[in-house]
Amino acid sequence: MEGPRRVAPWAPPRARRRLAELEARLAGQDADQVVRTVTGALAGHRRAFDEDGIVLYAGTNTMSPRALAAHDAAVSGRPSMGWPGDKYQTGLDHLDVLETLAPLQVAALMEGEFAEVRLQSATLANLACYTAFARPGDTIAVLPEAAGGHASHHAQGVAGVRGLRVADLPYDAAAFSIDHARLPGFLERERPALVVIGASLMLFPHDVAAVRAACDEVGATLVYDASHVAGLIAGRRFQRPLEEGAHVLTMSTYKSFGGPPGAAIVTRDEALAERVSAAAYPGLTANYDAARLAPLAVTAAELAETGPDYADACVANASALAAALQEAGFAVVAADRGWTASHHVAVDASDLGGGDAAARTLAEGGVYLSGIGLPGRAEPLPGLRIGTQEITRRGFTPPLMCDLAALMRRLLLDHEPPADVRPATTTLRHSLP
Amino acid sequence: MEGPRRVAPWAPPRARRRLAELEARLAGQDADQVVRTVTGALAGHRRAFDEDGIVLYAGTNTMSPRALAAHDAAVSGRPSMGWPGDKYQTGLDHLDVLETLAPLQVAALMEGEFAEVRLQSATLANLACYTAFARPGDTIAVLPEAAGGHASHHAQGVAGVRGLRVADLPYDAAAFSIDHARLPGFLERERPALVVIGASLMLFPHDVAAVRAACDEVGATLVYDASHVAGLIAGRRFQRPLEEGAHVLTMSTYKSFGGPPGAAIVTRDEALAERVSAAAYPGLTANYDAARLAPLAVTAAELAETGPDYADACVANASALAAALQEAGFAVVAADRGWTASHHVAVDASDLGGGDAAARTLAEGGVYLSGIGLPGRAEPLPGLRIGTQEITRRGFTPPLMCDLAALMRRLLLDHEPPADVRPATTTLRHSLP
Repeated sequence: MEGPRRVAPWAPPRARRRLAELEARLAGQDADQVVRTVTGALAGHRRAFDEDGIVLYAGTNTMSPRALAAHDAAVSGRPSMGWPGDKYQTGLDHLDVLETLAPLQVAALMEGEFAEVRLQSATLANLACYTAFARPGDTIAVLPEAAGGHASHHAQGVAGVRGLRVADLPYDAAAFSIDHARLPGFLERERPALVVIGASLMLFPHDVAAVRAACDEVGATLVYDASHVAGLIAGRRFQRPLEEGAHVLTMSTYKSFGGPPGAAIVTRDEALAERVSAAAYPGLTANYDAARLAPLAVTAAELAETGPDYADACVANASALAAALQEAGFAVVAADRGWTASHHVAVDASDLGGGDAAARTLAEGGVYLSGIGLPGRAEPLPGLRIGTQEITRRGFTPPLMCDLAALMRRLLLDHEPPADVRPATTTLRHSLP
Repeated sequence: MEGPRRVAPWAPPRARRRLAELEARLAGQDADQVVRTVTGALAGHRRAFDEDGIVLYAGTNTMSPRALAAHDAAVSGRPSMGWPGDKYQTGLDHLDVLETLAPLQVAALMEGEFAEVRLQSATLANLACYTAFARPGDTIAVLPEAAGGHASHHAQGVAGVRGLRVADLPYDAAAFSIDHARLPGFLERERPALVVIGASLMLFPHDVAAVRAACDEVGATLVYDASHVAGLIAGRRFQRPLEEGAHVLTMSTYKSFGGPPGAAIVTRDEALAERVSAAAYPGLTANYDAARLAPLAVTAAELAETGPDYADACVANASALAAALQEAGFAVVAADRGWTASHHVAVDASDLGGGDAAARTLAEGGVYLSGIGLPGRAEPLPGLRIGTQEITRRGFTPPLMCDLAALMRRLLLDHEPPADVRPATTTLRHSLP
């Protein structure tokens, strides 16, 4: 290397400090050093995060052993463009099986007729919908960021990439709900091409039927972003967005769904499916990573059998954890509504220095989650967001939620030094696979 | 599953026949059956394609053993949003190492200062450039499709997703070159925000300095899409786009580069890098797949040491194969210019039923490649495109190119039944790792 290079000199000061330390350490490594460095980093990550930590971060999961075993990394480098029987590439006939099986399994599981499974993330699935159903300059209506509207619904994300104007849906913060009284007038005024519901914090279901009825009055297409709750929906719990009236469902295939990272777009409408398909290819992909489809098909097939029990267990753990946190002294959000109807729990962290600071303290104690916006609150990340999908997969049950709440209490309310608490985290984690 | 579902009923007849056969076979499988099905499909693919076939498809490669070993699929499901030291998620400090090492290695290797490595494909890398440097309604100027302009440069791809107007650069088909005489007038008329060069068939380098000089006259940003030739550029062969004047280089990290699938965007200009970075995140990604970064860093570090020899070997194989194909009776493109200066070779397949039909015949004999457009030719895919990057990695050398040309002659010129030829393909393939 010619000289000292930098990563993101425009990054904020906290990042620059960390980057400068890493740049100095890592610059100019030769191949043997790089192999040792990445091997060490991956081993360190596995130990600290997967093996010794307790992962309550809502946007992740661990795959089932059969799904993980079905991932063949070499397939990722084999572009497969076009439909089975009519591809640009030759010699990929065996991959046709995955390209047929995965969408069939996902469509059936999510109560749709057609599933587009090629996009590498739900962000891109949302962009495919914006491309299929809106033109640059059109308006889309989405949940406010404080109510969990994802970056990919807003102008700083793919809505801005498509050149869309973004309007916040009217929201009733006290009710944790779209403001249905104000919705028709809002839609009449804004005339959005698309309405996107579904959020990064999903404590309670949306009234999809009511939103669809309002959309129909103005000819808007209704997209339900199920990125966080797809695993519950797969288990026929929480809600049934397509049955209740959403035109299109977008989703992450990992998070609560528990498969490989990536996305699916599901619909019952062939005309909509065809437009989404063109937006996915040739619109947004050339090589789309066919390796994802094998673990995706396995995950969907497993959820068809175990999904209801898994969803019930996720929700039971969330309810038990919410109760235990409240008992431990935390301000659990939506107490008057029973805290949650999903695998998510939110804690108001205003008295804990805010969600981001509280999350960092918890991380020092080996408990991993994130801050989150809260409806009606202007400050960034006033809450802590918890997802129970990964601990549920690892076998945690409601009785253990008191132990988990106690760890969080020691770290955030009792202000014990995180290093003193961390061994207890590891012990609790090691009590399960 | 409730009833018979279909995949892409809008697909063309050839695809529908194959899909209908697969749908009938695969519908309603339970989890055990799905596991058996995908395991069988992956094993079948590995055998037919990777082990017994000869892969001359230009848009793929095999990773080095050390790069492959550095891929940890579990990391793909761990979102890592923001810079090291300032991430939304907690507990990912070990991944900071990969997030610093990979861009440092890639930037240095490609002669840039800054590398954005988070995007999952070069198609998305191009979209990030369109987002950073153009607005919906702006014009971009790209190579005609017949001259290898990629779908991601054209309106059916991500240029259309961004809402851009696409104009074809003036092209001199006989010279396999941008028409530099007509370029200034064209740019003056069209006033593109961006000029994109680099193609899916890259027999000869572009005159980057001349294009940059013309861009400077109209204030256009010059993007060089090195998706196919990144591995040669890494070896400091073929050409040096950033040194010669390209503002930004986009690239695939597999294909000739030989790493994990995904993309990099490299530049020497901090202001451009910052805009690209914002387009990558939060613009186009939330979870970007950090697992890619370990094999990417290893691949880049290996290429820093072995890249020149690898690039020379790729080009030597291509030249030898072109000569052998010409000798065998094929119409190798650009004979008057020595066929190729890269790892690509193109054959005019007009007398062989066109590139797509010829590629399908070759596939029946175990030789995998694709059709391609040829400059100045209106028909779709009149040519065959060959890339030597994978066979070079597997150890093929110029003396074996006569054997390879002989296989292709038997299949396409002598019209031997593919089943009779296939054993010879397997034998040739098995003579090397």
